[in-house]
Amino acid sequence: MSTQSVKAYGTEAATADLKQLNINRRETTPKDVEIDILYCGVCHSDLHTARNDWGGTVYPAVPGHEILGRVTKVGSEVTKFKVGDLAAVGCIVDSCRECASCKEDLEQYCIPGFTGTYNGKDKHLKTQTFGGYSEKVVVDEHFVLRVPENLDLAGTAPLLCAGITTWSPLRHWNVGPDTKVAVVGLGGLGHMAIKLANALGANVTLFSRSPEKTQDALDLGAHEVVISTDKAQMKSVAGKFDVIIDTVPYVHDLNPYVGTLAVSGTIVVVGYLGGLEPLLNTVPMIMGRKSVAGSVIGGIAETQEMLDFCGKHNITSEVEVINIQDINEAYERMLKSDVRYRFVIDMASLKA
Amino acid sequence: MSTQSVKAYGTEAATADLKQLNINRRETTPKDVEIDILYCGVCHSDLHTARNDWGGTVYPAVPGHEILGRVTKVGSEVTKFKVGDLAAVGCIVDSCRECASCKEDLEQYCIPGFTGTYNGKDKHLKTQTFGGYSEKVVVDEHFVLRVPENLDLAGTAPLLCAGITTWSPLRHWNVGPDTKVAVVGLGGLGHMAIKLANALGANVTLFSRSPEKTQDALDLGAHEVVISTDKAQMKSVAGKFDVIIDTVPYVHDLNPYVGTLAVSGTIVVVGYLGGLEPLLNTVPMIMGRKSVAGSVIGGIAETQEMLDFCGKHNITSEVEVINIQDINEAYERMLKSDVRYRFVIDMASLKA
Repeated sequence: MSTQSVKAYGTEAATADLKQLNINRRETTPKDVEIDILYCGVCHSDLHTARNDWGGTVYPAVPGHEILGRVTKVGSEVTKFKVGDLAAVGCIVDSCRECASCKEDLEQYCIPGFTGTYNGKDKHLKTQTFGGYSEKVVVDEHFVLRVPENLDLAGTAPLLCAGITTWSPLRHWNVGPDTKVAVVGLGGLGHMAIKLANALGANVTLFSRSPEKTQDALDLGAHEVVISTDKAQMKSVAGKFDVIIDTVPYVHDLNPYVGTLAVSGTIVVVGYLGGLEPLLNTVPMIMGRKSVAGSVIGGIAETQEMLDFCGKHNITSEVEVINIQDINEAYERMLKSDVRYRFVIDMASLKA
Repeated sequence: MSTQSVKAYGTEAATADLKQLNINRRETTPKDVEIDILYCGVCHSDLHTARNDWGGTVYPAVPGHEILGRVTKVGSEVTKFKVGDLAAVGCIVDSCRECASCKEDLEQYCIPGFTGTYNGKDKHLKTQTFGGYSEKVVVDEHFVLRVPENLDLAGTAPLLCAGITTWSPLRHWNVGPDTKVAVVGLGGLGHMAIKLANALGANVTLFSRSPEKTQDALDLGAHEVVISTDKAQMKSVAGKFDVIIDTVPYVHDLNPYVGTLAVSGTIVVVGYLGGLEPLLNTVPMIMGRKSVAGSVIGGIAETQEMLDFCGKHNITSEVEVINIQDINEAYERMLKSDVRYRFVIDMASLKA
């Protein structure tokens, strides 16, 4: 299969900084779209993969799965895009398309496993996949999203991961007008959850340990902020919420949040991978028919629905635009939660 | 408020055997139904309350919340019952009737708390409530169920707790034709879950540690039995079930069962009260949008629906009928799971 060499930014080892390198992209097949990348959001998963925090990273690794750009070439069978269109790619660039999940537009739960945008197994080149910290990407049109023309482009990139990761559970658990929603944690995911839940008509509360984030949360669309370390404040919202989106990425006690769920309510964990410690207590779950659930990103059709919704409601992520040369410093700041609320790389800096 | 003295069987202390004693029942108020008790099922909660396993037991304690009998008196405003009717009472004899839960026919999740059939706070007499191990009970007609005439009476009594406790989650999580359901544990609750799920049209699997229960499970309506200690058998059902009803009453590892849930599946804990140990791992929950939930008994309207369904499908519990004088021995056998699958007291033995 013929390839082209493109500039990218990646790392050769878990302990090495990211630096400029070259990767191969396949030439467009009949169903492929080639995208000139304009912006790429910076997700915590990028950092975890670069540093092999989860194991399994194949080097060189090129992160980036919040990709926004313009179409520069289309294969002969492509129908959704033409050259010059805005286009976006999220966390998924392929899936089996045959399993029960894929047939239900739930590619994120593809039974044999979807192909991740980076550090996945490329079915065409048989190498690892390379993400959006690069000049160009070539993706099957099924996994390429249309982008509303009215949105700020840099702010749109994070919708492809932070946006869909919170949109999918909001939709699956039927959030709409009058639903009482709470969001745990105000970061890249949390600030999108607030904006999206608000736009869906829900009453939105932020749980945070940081009183200094209160004004930001209200500005983003929260109707109330509850300081989770304040027992009186927590008690005041006991039994209140229909749905809680928990975006906290480290181990934390879910039991106090279960206490704030209404009868038949659900808390959806989207940020923390691991064992629920301290022990999750079944008593309040049984006595209130409460659920603890998980959710990951979203399907392609659902991602398109989210982008269209954001276009209609003029929703984008709050971003700090950086040059690719600042990525190592940005990772250090992310580890300190020192970003409001998402770094986005201006890819012109790579091409310069 | 005028009362009548009736014979009952109860206990004066956590360490004492149950014995015959007298309790007061209120005279029927305009909305009350007086029931001559014919049969009363024996639930594990009876034993836990008698022995103060959960704390909070007020003595004397008279257990029993699977009550079946005939109406002997009705108040002037009673419309649902007349003297001579079959009638049943489950775990709930009163609730606030004003909260969001009560207004949605979810009396089991009454926000201020429902009044338990025993060891509850009687709003009329201001004493503890006394359960069905007695000659008669007097209950507001709202909390009294109609009983299909075609069912075996002794086998019907356990429907009032074991039946509704499994029916409610089967209905709430939309079990029907083609749903793949698994039941964990074959006891009082588990055997009802199999019968009800089968009658709802589901494909039913029993998870059990006991190969010797296989034939019983198939006879009750299971289509398959998976021995949960056999790793190969567990692997063969990975990702299979839409809904799992977990009836195990002691601490156990939920993670292997989460692994057998299909995408978007739910495991509902109805038997175990306490911390989930070993730690519940969020990774398979997130990667498959799986839920861990709890559920307790059911509402009054839902209980009536279940009884009507059982009448239509001729479903009753598998019971061993005992005399009230055998109750202490029955408790010891229950602790050894030596009952297939529910003890039911023939109340004629108390009246003799």
